[in-house]
Amino acid sequence: MNSDNKFNWPVRVYYEDTDAGGIVFYANYLKFFERARTEWLRSLGYSQHALLDTVGILFVVKKAAIEYFAPAKLDDELKLVVVVERLGGASMQIRQEAWRIEGEQATLLADGMVTVVCVSKESFRPCQIPDHIRSKLHGAQ
Amino acid sequence: MNSDNKFNWPVRVYYEDTDAGGIVFYANYLKFFERARTEWLRSLGYSQHALLDTVGILFVVKKAAIEYFAPAKLDDELKLVVVVERLGGASMQIRQEAWRIEGEQATLLADGMVTVVCVSKESFRPCQIPDHIRSKLHGAQ
Amino acid sequence: MNSDNKFNWPVRVYYEDTDAGGIVFYANYLKFFERARTEWLRSLGYSQHALLDTVGILFVVKKAAIEYFAPAKLDDELKLVVVVERLGGASMQIRQEAWRIEGEQATLLADGMVTVVCVSKESFRPCQIPDHIRSKLHGAQ
Amino acid sequence: MNSDNKFNWPVRVYYEDTDAGGIVFYANYLKFFERARTEWLRSLGYSQHALLDTVGILFVVKKAAIEYFAPAKLDDELKLVVVVERLGGASMQIRQEAWRIEGEQATLLADGMVTVVCVSKESFRPCQIPDHIRSKLHGAQ
Repeated sequence: MNSDNKFNWPVRVYYEDTDAGGIVFYANYLKFFERARTEWLRSLGYSQHALLDTVGILFVVKKAAIEYFAPAKLDDELKLVVVVERLGGASMQIRQEAWRIEGEQATLLADGMVTVVCVSKESFRPCQIPDHIRSKLHGAQ
Repeated sequence: MNSDNKFNWPVRVYYEDTDAGGIVFYANYLKFFERARTEWLRSLGYSQHALLDTVGILFVVKKAAIEYFAPAKLDDELKLVVVVERLGGASMQIRQEAWRIEGEQATLLADGMVTVVCVSKESFRPCQIPDHIRSKLHGAQ
Repeated sequence: MNSDNKFNWPVRVYYEDTDAGGIVFYANYLKFFERARTEWLRSLGYSQHALLDTVGILFVVKKAAIEYFAPAKLDDELKLVVVVERLGGASMQIRQEAWRIEGEQATLLADGMVTVVCVSKESFRPCQIPDHIRSKLHGAQ
Repeated sequence: MNSDNKFNWPVRVYYEDTDAGGIVFYANYLKFFERARTEWLRSLGYSQHALLDTVGILFVVKKAAIEYFAPAKLDDELKLVVVVERLGGASMQIRQEAWRIEGEQATLLADGMVTVVCVSKESFRPCQIPDHIRSKLHGAQ
């Protein structure tokens, strides 16, 4: 987490991410977004695995919106950015960006907004984000 | 294409589509959406492959927004729906839905809006949708 | 299942399956193989989902070997073939092939051998293939 | 590259890699293998992208064989190992391993052998591995 509360995570583009158009397949940005959210939670002390097994919750995606500005290509180095936009009782809205990094230059390739809801592992119904997690997320805003 | 100009495409959920939460991974709905758009174009007489090689164009996704209502699970039978919402000069807005089908019952699992732009294969810049394609798309509205 | 006990399953190649080399990504043939095995089991009366939830078993892959002869491309129509090569107590060896179909012509793109082991859902340890399933599989040899 | 000429590459398991069985989907190990081969080539000074665009060659997979010993799960830290087993004129055989790392402990999850062939970008036919690349690969044996 850097000074302006943006979390960054590097992603490299491999063959598996690209398609016959020569660029990263549009759905795969949502994979990159998920990796970045997972590493952001890990940086706050929470693994998805532990949340599921120990706390009994999952953060599931309720909504996702993404806009594409320029394509990523094979071997590109990307920087994924995570920012909490809104922290609700059982949900949060997360802004996510994908940048291509070439030396000093950064190009915004895609940005999006993802709404995740805290659900109980058993019922799959929304539940309050536990306080100890909320306070960490609050600090990350 | 049925009477109300909705195109339907069946999709079966396999292990590859699911994740450790026991449900279809959220990014994979965009794969299902793309399959449905591809088959809808094919039903109008256009394969992506031919568009790329013969006409020299691609339809690339500019924006995608999706909302999730209920999870799909392993072995589920889905029905993907494609409807043209708006047909512009070089772009179109497509409404897409994913339904779970169980006998007579259909449950809406996710819906979304996808904006695709017609781009030249060479320049990757937006170009007019060729007239012969446009007239077919118009009929599909 | 046709007369010579080969099960066939059609697969269409979409953008999601291809990579920047313009061909189907090599790992994705294992996805196609899995779809074909799943549909073959379904044709015998068993869904993976029911096996997991009702019988409490999974067929997990122990070994996979694949050789590639020619690449599949966007929009190709493939025929996936499943043949039981050897039926053991807790495992079976399955021959799998991927053919490209163009009108009357069929081209072998890849073939492989996959060893699957029947494991208990709880322990993840190998267990006997239940008799009622075995007899069906035997008929499919 | 460490002293015994094994190249190592770390991989983290995300939701996208897992399936409804709660473990990494069997085909995804081939994705991990490809990432490791790509990073190994990069460590020798060659990006896949540059090989394709500048040298006009691709390394395509001709054969892959993999055996699974234990499943990887969500959030697992894996170490992927790459070793050149045999360096031919237009091909090479590469041994690949996936290990789970927990503190000091390493568990072999899967190993395999991948045969890659050097092909011309234009003809997709096998061609000699260029000498400057061969000498680097030779050093990596």
